[in-house]
Amino acid sequence: MSKILVFGHQNPDTDAIGAAIAFAALQKELGKDAEAVALGTPNEETQFALDTFKLTAPRVIQTAANETDEVMLVDHNESQQSVADLKDVTVLAVVDHHRIANFETANPLYYRAEPVGCTSTIIFKLYKEHQVEVAAPIAGIMLSAIISDTLLFKSPTCTEEDKAAANELAAIAGVDLEVYGLDMLKAGTNLGTKTATELLTLDAKSFPMADKNVRIGQVNTVDLKEVFDRQAELEAAMQAAMQVEGYDLFLLVATDILDSNSELLVVGAPVAPVEAAFGVTLENHRAFLPGVVSRKKQIVPQLTEQFGI
Amino acid sequence: MSKILVFGHQNPDTDAIGAAIAFAALQKELGKDAEAVALGTPNEETQFALDTFKLTAPRVIQTAANETDEVMLVDHNESQQSVADLKDVTVLAVVDHHRIANFETANPLYYRAEPVGCTSTIIFKLYKEHQVEVAAPIAGIMLSAIISDTLLFKSPTCTEEDKAAANELAAIAGVDLEVYGLDMLKAGTNLGTKTATELLTLDAKSFPMADKNVRIGQVNTVDLKEVFDRQAELEAAMQAAMQVEGYDLFLLVATDILDSNSELLVVGAPVAPVEAAFGVTLENHRAFLPGVVSRKKQIVPQLTEQFGI
Repeated sequence: MSKILVFGHQNPDTDAIGAAIAFAALQKELGKDAEAVALGTPNEETQFALDTFKLTAPRVIQTAANETDEVMLVDHNESQQSVADLKDVTVLAVVDHHRIANFETANPLYYRAEPVGCTSTIIFKLYKEHQVEVAAPIAGIMLSAIISDTLLFKSPTCTEEDKAAANELAAIAGVDLEVYGLDMLKAGTNLGTKTATELLTLDAKSFPMADKNVRIGQVNTVDLKEVFDRQAELEAAMQAAMQVEGYDLFLLVATDILDSNSELLVVGAPVAPVEAAFGVTLENHRAFLPGVVSRKKQIVPQLTEQFGI
Repeated sequence: MSKILVFGHQNPDTDAIGAAIAFAALQKELGKDAEAVALGTPNEETQFALDTFKLTAPRVIQTAANETDEVMLVDHNESQQSVADLKDVTVLAVVDHHRIANFETANPLYYRAEPVGCTSTIIFKLYKEHQVEVAAPIAGIMLSAIISDTLLFKSPTCTEEDKAAANELAAIAGVDLEVYGLDMLKAGTNLGTKTATELLTLDAKSFPMADKNVRIGQVNTVDLKEVFDRQAELEAAMQAAMQVEGYDLFLLVATDILDSNSELLVVGAPVAPVEAAFGVTLENHRAFLPGVVSRKKQIVPQLTEQFGI
């Protein structure tokens, strides 16, 4: 039997990579021949976490069926966010904390989703349910994923379970949660060295809404002005990506991780559902969204509702 | 806040009703205002189980949005098997053991699926995880669901977890598993008093396959001949249902619960994928399927594969 590949979504963030590493390690403890892989290289925040806990970045794959029949998904389920040939392999398991959409199987499977802030919080629970001890580096990368997904507990997606898991994991990993957390988040905000296209693809996902293909990218920063100084360059890159990839609408959400606000940049059409979703009027293609930090909870459902699905 | 409605699939079987009763009872223990309802009246097997454990059949609903905003699904997820207005309510939770298809949410939710023989096996596990004691009648209806779904452990869908759960639940419910189990299954095979249309709708589900609408009904019997003595009557009722409901293909699976074989009756088109799926040639619209007892494991995936989804 071929190896079971375990992976998170495209444009992997720290949870996509951390949850894959942690879930594959759990599967190995349970006797399965599993390997964590990734659908992209780590971003700077994730690389900082991997380096801190002396873990190797998972091997990058584009397709799965060329090397296995069986996969496990973490931190995503929507097929357009997954490996290109998902339909050609059997999904044995999913562990996720997102909405369910564009996901379909021919056979029953193990599916564990909970409305918590981070997939790694659920995976930590699975370690406990199976009474498997968590090694310090695995605890470190799961902790990093929780800090990343909840912006150090500031996101409205964060639950008491996430906080409790993070505290336990910090103790196992042997780091100071607050100090390590802010260091790690800051490592991901080094935007100046990146091209506009790199910024757009850092953490971007596609969402079909009604008959539109909506792309939503997010960047974390400690200085919104630094991002919007490059607005013209960003808009040109968004237009180019829309041409190439067939997006109808492209939203870039720039999130200030210190103040917990976001500024939105919108290219494409229709913009009316965007304005209605957030109760704003776009000016110069932009709108300030006070208190908005979560794409999953404060962007996607509101937009989805306006598109009338 | 309105009451959370908890329900299983249309044409409810013992698991659809039993799992709804058990999961609603668990939610109440956890402080939620939940009510078990059903998308149809109990069949004779389920009624036998309800009577044995002195439980009342759940209230039947057709739509949910007229009385609540929030629902929990058990034993199904596919929207065409659910309440008619599923898209108008929020699905808070799903507990299921089927494939995932035609299911989509705008928000993250609690989703717990495991590839075991019965939803009630998973719900019994949830009672344990939450350290909630199972009352004897609730144990009885969960036990009944496991016996029903696994045909007293003879179905290939049955796992060691189902058997272990059933044994524990029989002890709590205070019944002899084998004796009660066979009595209950036999109570569901009283087909002679039913019209052809009643037989077809006893346990029938719709499955979109490629561009076809496939209906698959199943009846349990201790005498296949008794079923097929009524073949002409059954075919006429299947044709009529296809006209009214727009099915392209209608399969009736008559399952001998003592010998663990099935006989298939097929009306509509295309039949080529059916013959290919089971390696048979239909004669007089029929084919014998030795060892086949599970629609979920031995019918739907094989057909789905032939339809090329």
